[in-house]
Amino acid sequence: MSDSPVVPGGSRSLLRTNRFEAFSDGVFAIAITILVLELGVPEAAVEHPLQSVLDEWPTYVAYVVSFASVDALWLEHNVITEHLRVTDTVLIRLNLLLLMVVSFLPFPTGLLSEYRGNAGAERVAVTFYGITLLAASTMISVLWRHAVRARLVREDLSDQDAQALAKRLNPSLWAYLAIIVAGLVVPRLAVIGYLAVAVYLILPFELLRRRRTTREG
Amino acid sequence: MSDSPVVPGGSRSLLRTNRFEAFSDGVFAIAITILVLELGVPEAAVEHPLQSVLDEWPTYVAYVVSFASVDALWLEHNVITEHLRVTDTVLIRLNLLLLMVVSFLPFPTGLLSEYRGNAGAERVAVTFYGITLLAASTMISVLWRHAVRARLVREDLSDQDAQALAKRLNPSLWAYLAIIVAGLVVPRLAVIGYLAVAVYLILPFELLRRRRTTREG
Amino acid sequence: MSDSPVVPGGSRSLLRTNRFEAFSDGVFAIAITILVLELGVPEAAVEHPLQSVLDEWPTYVAYVVSFASVDALWLEHNVITEHLRVTDTVLIRLNLLLLMVVSFLPFPTGLLSEYRGNAGAERVAVTFYGITLLAASTMISVLWRHAVRARLVREDLSDQDAQALAKRLNPSLWAYLAIIVAGLVVPRLAVIGYLAVAVYLILPFELLRRRRTTREG
Amino acid sequence: MSDSPVVPGGSRSLLRTNRFEAFSDGVFAIAITILVLELGVPEAAVEHPLQSVLDEWPTYVAYVVSFASVDALWLEHNVITEHLRVTDTVLIRLNLLLLMVVSFLPFPTGLLSEYRGNAGAERVAVTFYGITLLAASTMISVLWRHAVRARLVREDLSDQDAQALAKRLNPSLWAYLAIIVAGLVVPRLAVIGYLAVAVYLILPFELLRRRRTTREG
Repeated sequence: MSDSPVVPGGSRSLLRTNRFEAFSDGVFAIAITILVLELGVPEAAVEHPLQSVLDEWPTYVAYVVSFASVDALWLEHNVITEHLRVTDTVLIRLNLLLLMVVSFLPFPTGLLSEYRGNAGAERVAVTFYGITLLAASTMISVLWRHAVRARLVREDLSDQDAQALAKRLNPSLWAYLAIIVAGLVVPRLAVIGYLAVAVYLILPFELLRRRRTTREG
Repeated sequence: MSDSPVVPGGSRSLLRTNRFEAFSDGVFAIAITILVLELGVPEAAVEHPLQSVLDEWPTYVAYVVSFASVDALWLEHNVITEHLRVTDTVLIRLNLLLLMVVSFLPFPTGLLSEYRGNAGAERVAVTFYGITLLAASTMISVLWRHAVRARLVREDLSDQDAQALAKRLNPSLWAYLAIIVAGLVVPRLAVIGYLAVAVYLILPFELLRRRRTTREG
Repeated sequence: MSDSPVVPGGSRSLLRTNRFEAFSDGVFAIAITILVLELGVPEAAVEHPLQSVLDEWPTYVAYVVSFASVDALWLEHNVITEHLRVTDTVLIRLNLLLLMVVSFLPFPTGLLSEYRGNAGAERVAVTFYGITLLAASTMISVLWRHAVRARLVREDLSDQDAQALAKRLNPSLWAYLAIIVAGLVVPRLAVIGYLAVAVYLILPFELLRRRRTTREG
Repeated sequence: MSDSPVVPGGSRSLLRTNRFEAFSDGVFAIAITILVLELGVPEAAVEHPLQSVLDEWPTYVAYVVSFASVDALWLEHNVITEHLRVTDTVLIRLNLLLLMVVSFLPFPTGLLSEYRGNAGAERVAVTFYGITLLAASTMISVLWRHAVRARLVREDLSDQDAQALAKRLNPSLWAYLAIIVAGLVVPRLAVIGYLAVAVYLILPFELLRRRRTTREG
């Protein structure tokens, strides 16, 4: 997976982005929707059925955190594809790696909802979960850097904008690293951290885009 | 998530609706299709295998009610996107919230089919189920109101039509609220109520559209 | 769900077929792919692991029969949409009913693979399975008849061709009815029958189309 | 499934490739994403929760091997459709056979992750898995050969290129056969072999395409 610059029209075949987008959208949509299958229906205690549903709150939290995290990744992926002119074969393979990590997320989500009540198990689940998010976030960053280096992005994207976007994708890496470390000490804090990162990633893209649109107008 | 009016061509970036629709369609299609995975195959009693399949009737009822409810939401979502000219970043985030609720529905559906035989458990399941439908219905309403306020709708949509559509989406909110309360007293009545609302929502859109088409013709 | 003839350009709104097709394709693709989730991995007997995998043959048969049956339905659905000019709101609702039956198929498939070794249970599973296929096949037939009656089909489709297609879809109804009855006596025969019908439906469409193409050429 | 050459514009109806591609993409995307559902969350041992997650390594290996193998098949499928001008009814049926094998892969993946610790069971799982991959790879090869023989490929594809692509698809057949035999002796070696084939298939298509692009440039 070379990162060497590519002369446009040169030796690397450049492919249309439509099937790339359609396949990615499919995997994101499925990964997000099957998260619910990790939510096992709890046994109804005859005396306290409401309690037995409410006791599952860590499962619901895990569901919301994962849903928000995949949303954030999908939005970041959209920002990348919005700026793509073409894809190349390296980008398609890097994208398959990203999709593998995204598809895998329901598994650590299951760990997060099952491994509780015991600090050791919670630490394992939360760390495993964080590493998965870190890997996904890293792949998003690698995808964007490759796209810029291989000149696959639209020609109207200035170098500053390209760098701004790259920087925009960096903080989540550092945040995830920090939360993984924090989670080794206080596992439940890490879950809140992952949710906070996802919400942060979901919200401010709008501001970034608004700035760009204003400049263009 | 501001609801402030937006000057067309102003500072908020306006996005095409195609990926928005494709991703939503994907999540709706998957959510509706994996409902079947909540239907566990019952143990075949050697003496009465037919009985053991028929005894699962609450499961089949839950399946049909959820299928019809997602159908109704999908049709309402279609009515919204049919009238959209563009999307903005707020609408995309609101839509992700709606999709989270829709994706979650298989879980309360599982509760509905598992928690039976005991009035307390049925009450919990039916209320949980109703709250999920109420949340989805609320998000549909919020989506439409934002689209109208932010002027994302087609220009040929008159204010009266916009208000008629908004009103059209309101009754289900009140109906769901009423059924949730009724379900606290007679849980099984609520299941029939949810099915009735879904069938009502599926059928009369046609009449609404017919009226509009006639006026145009 | 009225079947009354509709004057073109009249009071019923006519919709484009693209989202109708995309949503249907999504549900068919998911229903066919999650069939595999009904295949539970058998416990590996330490002494005879090969035997424990081979003993699952009724499960594999059920998988192949259901896969072929959904393939047949998808191909029939394609034949219908190939001849559609527009859809109307009734067709969309009828289609949702078809999709509900198709989505449900993994459940009787599970029955088919679990309820064996006991003639009574096999009879129940096979009959339940057959009724589901009969319902799907009926919905395909109803869809086509509505499309023709409401003049949603392409204008270059002659009345003879429309009738030929309607006839083409009928035999499977009678075949399924006959197999359901036969299955009450010899359940395993019915499974072979369902496979035979699916294979028959998959193969001769080509011949039908070839004849049409030749006539046009 | 005749392989006889077809006169263009002759008696066989030629169909557009878009729904063919969309349906295939859907099934590939779903098959790859539901692989994660075979990963059961292990019971958390109170004393050694990390160990109980790490002990699942054969499951993770099976997940990665299957993900990579479906990726490879999807890329090969893409190469075929990139060169298709039209489809015919035979190709659509052959493609449905391929999709059936691809959809089935999560089952042998489950075997691979469950049947371990015992040489006999591992041998069964690994062989079953290999036969599934061999079947998928054979179907890809059959698809391509039919497309070339029935002149469904783009007219600018020279006979040499067609043969080069056919040869390109052959090695995996022989590799899978060799690994199946090797797996009867050393099952774990076979798993590494399947991963190696998948990685090999994923990587060098780029080189092949680059050569073609260069020649065109």
